[in-house]
Amino acid sequence: MALIVKKFGGSSVANAERVFNVANRIIDDYKKGNDVIVVVSAQGDTTDDLIDKAKEINEKGGSKREMDMLLSAGEQISIALLAMAIEKLGYPVISLLGWQAGFETDSHHTFARIKKVNTERLKNEIEKKKIVIVAGFQGLNRYDDITTLGRGGSDTSAVAIAAAMKADLCQIYTDVDGVYSADPRKVKTAQKMDEISYDEMLELATLGAQVLNNRSVEMAKKYNVELEVLSSLEVKPGTIVKEKVKMEKTLIRGVAKDNNVACISVVGLEDTPGIAFKLFNKLSQYKVNIDIILQSVGRDGTKDITFTVSRDQSADAVAALEAMKDILTYKNIKVDESVCKVSIVGAGMESNPGVASKMFEALYDAGINIQMISTSEIKISVLIDAKYADSAVSAVHDKFI
Amino acid sequence: MALIVKKFGGSSVANAERVFNVANRIIDDYKKGNDVIVVVSAQGDTTDDLIDKAKEINEKGGSKREMDMLLSAGEQISIALLAMAIEKLGYPVISLLGWQAGFETDSHHTFARIKKVNTERLKNEIEKKKIVIVAGFQGLNRYDDITTLGRGGSDTSAVAIAAAMKADLCQIYTDVDGVYSADPRKVKTAQKMDEISYDEMLELATLGAQVLNNRSVEMAKKYNVELEVLSSLEVKPGTIVKEKVKMEKTLIRGVAKDNNVACISVVGLEDTPGIAFKLFNKLSQYKVNIDIILQSVGRDGTKDITFTVSRDQSADAVAALEAMKDILTYKNIKVDESVCKVSIVGAGMESNPGVASKMFEALYDAGINIQMISTSEIKISVLIDAKYADSAVSAVHDKFI
Repeated sequence: MALIVKKFGGSSVANAERVFNVANRIIDDYKKGNDVIVVVSAQGDTTDDLIDKAKEINEKGGSKREMDMLLSAGEQISIALLAMAIEKLGYPVISLLGWQAGFETDSHHTFARIKKVNTERLKNEIEKKKIVIVAGFQGLNRYDDITTLGRGGSDTSAVAIAAAMKADLCQIYTDVDGVYSADPRKVKTAQKMDEISYDEMLELATLGAQVLNNRSVEMAKKYNVELEVLSSLEVKPGTIVKEKVKMEKTLIRGVAKDNNVACISVVGLEDTPGIAFKLFNKLSQYKVNIDIILQSVGRDGTKDITFTVSRDQSADAVAALEAMKDILTYKNIKVDESVCKVSIVGAGMESNPGVASKMFEALYDAGINIQMISTSEIKISVLIDAKYADSAVSAVHDKFI
Repeated sequence: MALIVKKFGGSSVANAERVFNVANRIIDDYKKGNDVIVVVSAQGDTTDDLIDKAKEINEKGGSKREMDMLLSAGEQISIALLAMAIEKLGYPVISLLGWQAGFETDSHHTFARIKKVNTERLKNEIEKKKIVIVAGFQGLNRYDDITTLGRGGSDTSAVAIAAAMKADLCQIYTDVDGVYSADPRKVKTAQKMDEISYDEMLELATLGAQVLNNRSVEMAKKYNVELEVLSSLEVKPGTIVKEKVKMEKTLIRGVAKDNNVACISVVGLEDTPGIAFKLFNKLSQYKVNIDIILQSVGRDGTKDITFTVSRDQSADAVAALEAMKDILTYKNIKVDESVCKVSIVGAGMESNPGVASKMFEALYDAGINIQMISTSEIKISVLIDAKYADSAVSAVHDKFI
């Protein structure tokens, strides 16, 4: 008997048939004597439909507080429907909203951080032998206002529950059957992995492999929650994500691309000490997450700072920069959203010289120009023109794997 | 400066244009220096759409607890959208769910009673000079589970807030511009009233005039909340509902019909003391509200008890009766849903003999058979075949008004 946390995304519960499919997957585990907590996202297009409704009222959407109020209704609908399906199949079940399941977050609406999961109610329901269905993506701040966790938030909800409840396993159901060395829909030679370490997965998640949300992997690593990424459609083992994995021959674990990148250049900055600090400090106040940073010397005692952010944060980044006009002199800001990041990931890469040059060679052979480069212990990323994204992934994948 | 509670139904906020229409009505009052709390129902067909989703999972609908979880998402969407419209128009606003607005209810899911409104948060937001938008129809029970108040629950939510906040006026916006002596869509000679007493309104509400929910009028009477029933489409005075109204010439204030009636007969009951007590006690345990009761002597030392309930409670009533088979012997149960109740209401009626016979005469002249009769100090109701409902209302209305 184990405590298993299972997370299903919106497409897995998009209609009544799929809801029953998910219900049966849950009941299979429950019947084996396991305690089961399930985290669900909003059904299919519900979130997009709600966003459309908001845009009919205000093209820019409502305030973030009201957007959270609106969007959190989506999971409320899906948890109730999934609970009804399990009731109909004759098993004890209860649905809980984020706040009912104990999710306390900070007050950063639309992108809140989980502060704590108060497990009292969860434990009570599990003790009553109920299957517990929890609304992913949402929590409550200290003012009793509903918050949402941002993109991929339901993964994070699932891992947070698994950590707080000391679950034996946290299963993330997706539309792929595990973690691959590249996107299997794009690269035919992509290989599925049985295991991958948190660090490698983290790089792949951050880099846009889109299998798992990076915040959820960070949290899994921090609390040592064993994750499994598996298919919501087929019943077969997926990929286990954990601290230590057995070494495999392949040095490079995966190739990932990330289209959700904007490249922002601040041109003609005064070349004095503290400029970078002031700039990135302001961006952090605007909650903008920076990825790659490049600083170059410009002309006439000026310098340029270029950095990448996720595309949905580029407006916030520009707003932050414009708010600094008084304390920071610069010539202009350039925003380029037609870029893409391609990365290779593999533990132990840093002790193997030649990996970087092999990657650059593959891109050179494919005629693709590199705009920025960033490296860490276990990854190398390059920024390229978005239109070459898929061919770059294929070229690099075939070179290594 | 006054504190005004305004309630808008689902059709008033059915689309973006209507949401802005409502927003402007609210802002008009706010601009005059008033504090404004607004109670809204779910948009247009949202509730029906959610019920359809539940029926796709389970024809009978889910458990009542999960139905409440599902349906309460409807108001969550409408309050957020209305708040966004007011934001867009440049006024300070906040939306609150039932539980955030302090609604504590009992645990009778889908038909919960309000126990208390904790006004702390409402008062805080009003002190901050915010327009407060509250989700009608919903609350929270002592187990922190979401409950809903049943049909017309948003009216009750509005009156409960007005009572708890000691509001100066509670305005209920509807698709008619006030309370009429009969349904103006059906009876051309129907007259709008400037004022009506709680008691008269209560009879009219109970009797199916469908302008105001009867629980809301009961509550308004209990806490002496002045109500105004007015049009959500046109800007003009409506009908004021309060304790004492100036006497008018007309003895009969209104004629109402109620189609939401089922007539249930328990045939062949043992004719011993305590039978009626046992029967209605059990029905009250099943939370079935009884309206008219008729007892008649049957054959062979048995008796029949016939009563009416609202049509949506007829299944519960039958379930209650079937659960009593061991302690109560009866021959069979008959359910007739093709009936309708037509009533006349007017204070001081009891001191005027001949009112009842005048009503029966009108029905006789129209060739309509009376199945049951019920009277109180201020009303006379008859149960008739549903197909004669409209002609009965017209006949009675023309006789008196």
